[in-house]
Amino acid sequence: MRALLAAALALPAAPALGQDITVREIGSFHIGGGITTVSGLPTREIIFSPGSPPFRYDPNGDFQAGQMYVQYVRLANSLARFPLLLVHGGGLTGVTWEPTPDGRPGWQMAFLRAGHDVSVSDAVERGRAGWSRFPEIFKGEPVFRTMGEGWQLFRVGPADGWARDPQARRAYPGTRFPIAAWDQFTKQSVPRWVTTDAKIQAAYDAYIDRVCPCLVIVHSQGGNFMFRAALRAPDKIRAIIAIEPSGAPDPARDDAARVKDIPHLMVWGDFLGENALWQRIKPVIDRWAAAIREKGGTVEELSLPDCIRGNSHMLMMDDNTDQIAALIQEWIAAKGLMR
Amino acid sequence: MRALLAAALALPAAPALGQDITVREIGSFHIGGGITTVSGLPTREIIFSPGSPPFRYDPNGDFQAGQMYVQYVRLANSLARFPLLLVHGGGLTGVTWEPTPDGRPGWQMAFLRAGHDVSVSDAVERGRAGWSRFPEIFKGEPVFRTMGEGWQLFRVGPADGWARDPQARRAYPGTRFPIAAWDQFTKQSVPRWVTTDAKIQAAYDAYIDRVCPCLVIVHSQGGNFMFRAALRAPDKIRAIIAIEPSGAPDPARDDAARVKDIPHLMVWGDFLGENALWQRIKPVIDRWAAAIREKGGTVEELSLPDCIRGNSHMLMMDDNTDQIAALIQEWIAAKGLMR
Repeated sequence: MRALLAAALALPAAPALGQDITVREIGSFHIGGGITTVSGLPTREIIFSPGSPPFRYDPNGDFQAGQMYVQYVRLANSLARFPLLLVHGGGLTGVTWEPTPDGRPGWQMAFLRAGHDVSVSDAVERGRAGWSRFPEIFKGEPVFRTMGEGWQLFRVGPADGWARDPQARRAYPGTRFPIAAWDQFTKQSVPRWVTTDAKIQAAYDAYIDRVCPCLVIVHSQGGNFMFRAALRAPDKIRAIIAIEPSGAPDPARDDAARVKDIPHLMVWGDFLGENALWQRIKPVIDRWAAAIREKGGTVEELSLPDCIRGNSHMLMMDDNTDQIAALIQEWIAAKGLMR
Repeated sequence: MRALLAAALALPAAPALGQDITVREIGSFHIGGGITTVSGLPTREIIFSPGSPPFRYDPNGDFQAGQMYVQYVRLANSLARFPLLLVHGGGLTGVTWEPTPDGRPGWQMAFLRAGHDVSVSDAVERGRAGWSRFPEIFKGEPVFRTMGEGWQLFRVGPADGWARDPQARRAYPGTRFPIAAWDQFTKQSVPRWVTTDAKIQAAYDAYIDRVCPCLVIVHSQGGNFMFRAALRAPDKIRAIIAIEPSGAPDPARDDAARVKDIPHLMVWGDFLGENALWQRIKPVIDRWAAAIREKGGTVEELSLPDCIRGNSHMLMMDDNTDQIAALIQEWIAAKGLMR
């Protein structure tokens, strides 16, 4: 990937920035999940809106659970052979791909401008997917990410570099995350469960069945779900671009030969060596990549620090996000996936 | 409004259906809320993604709370004088305005095609706005709407007409809601609190301050929030189209004269007389409308059953949704709000 990186450094930062797009349709749907019944809970009286009369609320009954949300933008004239799915990571939603927290265009817009029909989704229990009563339907308790946990997990700075006071925070030298917008970014956080992986995977599988063949750009926690979606339906996914995936199948249990015809690109930011968790995650991904290669597949690695320093885990929000999107677009084109 | 209704019956159902739009930008942001600190809770070990190593989770720390989410579509050439805000009702998100549950274009697309820059939002604690730990940050418990409660509250059918088995359900005769898609619609439901009104209002006020002057189309629970936003900043809101608002200010406490220069249109569907809660809600809205008129303001009522029978509370999803959107568009144009 060094040649690609070197070439990219000569690219204009945002080739299509500001370009209008002709849109046939913006739409959305929920997919996956099913009906669950809750019973035996007491009723109570509630007032839905200030000024509206009281209402006898019965929490028992039938509920939808386990669905996910998809929003798509269809261009009048797509330049790509397949739609592009943008899949977010843990504790976040599809907003990951929308404008950066400091207001620059994000990857949804970048890849629309590059000519892709783009779908952005919210996983089960995140964002517009909705979530369910616990412990009756979802098991266990939700996990809420603190602003400081994100600071270290997303490798903007060291664990002890976090402070509520922005002046007192310490970031990694040269970080490309727009740290003045860190507080704004953390408004994108949503709670998550750690007990719903089967539901999340099932909804992703249903999503893939509905809209693919397709290309996938996936971030962090989404990586493992998409690697597994590919194992289940290898004919449906024509490329996976995994941005810092945080998990992967185990070659001892999962047959990497099934996905050998899907080109993979793994993209990594900087400061991996500074964070103990990421030092443990990276070998899990490398093992899966090696297994696919061993079966004759193609897994390329775009390790940004080879040429570009300072990218965080949220590299689609970093100050060089347009450049990284352009690199990925170039890779997609090189794989023959544009018209 | 009878003349408008009669004229509309002669309109093609979907004048702009299928028309491409030229889009300058699709974007989003979170607005409102602030940082809250949680302390004194125990830590525990969790695994974020299957295949990833364990992580010591500390639930204590700083969290953003009380923000809302806004997604906007800016046209290359808007035909309207002000942006249009679509504001959802209770237990739902901005998805209300996206395609109908049976896959027809919704009002986001209809009003984009009519030439408006359209913003769709998710209120505090709904959808992509995210939600907070309770009872530490949000007070009380969330409320989850059953599929059957929606059936009656949204006036698709009587309370005793609900059954989990679609064949056994009983709708109001002539309902225009696409009842075969009821189960699909209920996937749009999200939990809500009844203790967060002040947070919701504050975020809406910040949203209005950021993007207005504007026009507002608001549904159900959103009505009261937008009526109050107008009271606070009457110069910011140039028209309110309230679709079956479920609450309103009290003229004994709130000065209707403040909003007398804002044209209001109240839109009502059918079967109001069949539902006890709606029989109690309607007079609350009528009282506020009368108070505005008494101060010299304009409040028009579009009571659909005067000419069109069968509309539900979710009339933006009903089989004649394009016709209703066209009626509203005609009202907006008649108020001089298009270029």
